[in-house]
Amino acid sequence: MTNFTYYNPVKIVFGKGMIAELKTLVPAGAKVMLTYGGGSIKANGVYDQVRAALAGFEVSEFGGIEPNPRYETCMRAAAQAKAEKAGFLLAVGGGSVLDATKFIAVAALYGAGDPWEIMEGRTPVTAALPLGSVLTLPATGSEMNTYAVISRDATGEKLAFGSPHCYPLFSVLDPETTFSLPARQVENGIIDTFAHVMEQYMCAAGRAPLTERQAEAVLLTLVEEAPKVKSAPGDYAVRANLMWCATVGLNGSLGCGVEAQDWATHMIGHELTALYGIDHGRTLAVIMPAVHRHQLARKLPRLAQCAERVWGLREGDVRARAAQGIDRMEAFFRSVGVPTRLGEYGIDAADAGRQVAERLAKRGLKLGEYGDLGPEAVREIVALAK
Amino acid sequence: MTNFTYYNPVKIVFGKGMIAELKTLVPAGAKVMLTYGGGSIKANGVYDQVRAALAGFEVSEFGGIEPNPRYETCMRAAAQAKAEKAGFLLAVGGGSVLDATKFIAVAALYGAGDPWEIMEGRTPVTAALPLGSVLTLPATGSEMNTYAVISRDATGEKLAFGSPHCYPLFSVLDPETTFSLPARQVENGIIDTFAHVMEQYMCAAGRAPLTERQAEAVLLTLVEEAPKVKSAPGDYAVRANLMWCATVGLNGSLGCGVEAQDWATHMIGHELTALYGIDHGRTLAVIMPAVHRHQLARKLPRLAQCAERVWGLREGDVRARAAQGIDRMEAFFRSVGVPTRLGEYGIDAADAGRQVAERLAKRGLKLGEYGDLGPEAVREIVALAK
Repeated sequence: MTNFTYYNPVKIVFGKGMIAELKTLVPAGAKVMLTYGGGSIKANGVYDQVRAALAGFEVSEFGGIEPNPRYETCMRAAAQAKAEKAGFLLAVGGGSVLDATKFIAVAALYGAGDPWEIMEGRTPVTAALPLGSVLTLPATGSEMNTYAVISRDATGEKLAFGSPHCYPLFSVLDPETTFSLPARQVENGIIDTFAHVMEQYMCAAGRAPLTERQAEAVLLTLVEEAPKVKSAPGDYAVRANLMWCATVGLNGSLGCGVEAQDWATHMIGHELTALYGIDHGRTLAVIMPAVHRHQLARKLPRLAQCAERVWGLREGDVRARAAQGIDRMEAFFRSVGVPTRLGEYGIDAADAGRQVAERLAKRGLKLGEYGDLGPEAVREIVALAK
Repeated sequence: MTNFTYYNPVKIVFGKGMIAELKTLVPAGAKVMLTYGGGSIKANGVYDQVRAALAGFEVSEFGGIEPNPRYETCMRAAAQAKAEKAGFLLAVGGGSVLDATKFIAVAALYGAGDPWEIMEGRTPVTAALPLGSVLTLPATGSEMNTYAVISRDATGEKLAFGSPHCYPLFSVLDPETTFSLPARQVENGIIDTFAHVMEQYMCAAGRAPLTERQAEAVLLTLVEEAPKVKSAPGDYAVRANLMWCATVGLNGSLGCGVEAQDWATHMIGHELTALYGIDHGRTLAVIMPAVHRHQLARKLPRLAQCAERVWGLREGDVRARAAQGIDRMEAFFRSVGVPTRLGEYGIDAADAGRQVAERLAKRGLKLGEYGDLGPEAVREIVALAK
């Protein structure tokens, strides 16, 4: 186990009817600015529950935050928060609304200069408006971490930042809010959660036995619960299990003592979203099997461990088991309802590989747990996803 | 999954050499009172590391906190903290020092009246001095929770309390500090950790699939690592794994969504400690198999699940597997080096059962996940541990 610091002060308030707790969770007397997306919360009753719980507060609103939230939108929201002297931001929605709200919280208190400097890593975050969330889409884990991904139209950039100032004070997770999600978003959320766990777990360097088993706990639960959400979409227990998996999957606990994380799949996936507009979760389903196949030799012990503990494969030699485990993962993604090959999107994998490699090369990025997957390796990986 | 709130703001600073981080972890300018036990930290170098890290702080000391820390000792420490106007308490030691320090932190700010009122549940905790810890004995989980158990000589009581005010601000966990522990304390710590997890996991009511798997993750890791600490007591990785298991075992995460916890083993164990002076961890090894055997029919599904997932038992019918799983747990305790029968302590189990039942009856306590194990059931359970 490598040395680590773990700190996560987010209060999780989980279960049906818990939105009503907002009245005690939001700091007394705070001037609240509600942030949300395209308005699905108005259709499914979540908005009404939130407004009812906040009856005792002065509340303003900023709606229209898009998926892959844009810097330009966030800056308008930050200007509104400043003008209204908002004291607390309440994000109601999925990961995009949460991510945007973290950036808004920072931008609203940013002094002279452009808050984009933070995304570029040129200045550190020193303050943020306090924020909380009501989560309606289990996927990104943003409800219990410090991270946010923001896109900028003008430059075509999509960058991530994180700061302890951006921990939500609380996140309310009511699984009932997920009943009305379109199947596609549920599918994407399952893949995204699975991939988050795998990026932390599927590394060859070092051992962290308890953390590895905790990662396997999430993977096993996902594999068990995912088929049920298709056959019984109104089953509360299944929704609750998937929602809790998504939060635990990226709240930092699965990184404790882990020597190196991977995240190559995410980095390549982001480029595919930028190039072809494929949903984030769906890019992961295409790229993760390819990364594992490409890195089979280096990740062999962990891949074999995963094959045994997650997929129950106990026969054959280590290499065969590892390879079979990757096949099983791909089959799982397909069973969720998500394509795993670029061809299924009408994309030529060899061509995509060249383009992604070029884009990453321009930014001088090398990927993977060893930080040594350069353009050539990336090209090969994407080509494998044909 | 049942509704739940999870909140744990303790910063964990884990790994070799991390004691030096105290210089940035302790609030700048704080007047620090160091609390510790019998002085083993002076023999093993931990004290020197702590003092070196605190070179920039004004530091006083209160040593001599005993195992099963006493109210009387804590009150002397609280008086000292008050007199010295200490602004921060730093507990250096195991669970007893940590528990005592939590009570000291509350007592030092307690107004008129006797802080024992808090232990009796007559008044709530409204304030506590901020505290941190350097853990040297993995066992109780106190380093990452709000709980403390304190004994009072005058009345023979041993009571527990907990309050969010008592979360340590941070806990430094350096596995190297555990190299010099006596084998007996290491054994007790393994059993205590195992039992903490089991009290949360071995319940028949409700399901919390991810949390159950996370509990199994700790149990599996303990079963894997415990034998190694005997054969290779100087192996850092093993010490680190055991230490992290103890913390995760009782930091609240394994209670998320769990409908009812059990804790009958702990309640009965406390009485055996009071009656016969048997170490806390050792009482658990005697009582837990007896509780599970007594409750076999009611806990059948979870016992069978444990048998399969933790002990790898896949043969036989559910009942046979469940029973075999309990045998395997008892064998595990014995392999750690801990007796599992009262006879091994020269105690007549039938007699002990009568006494424990009488003591619990006097306090009107009923035990177990359903809160319905009265004196008769308790007598039967203890008698099973003959």
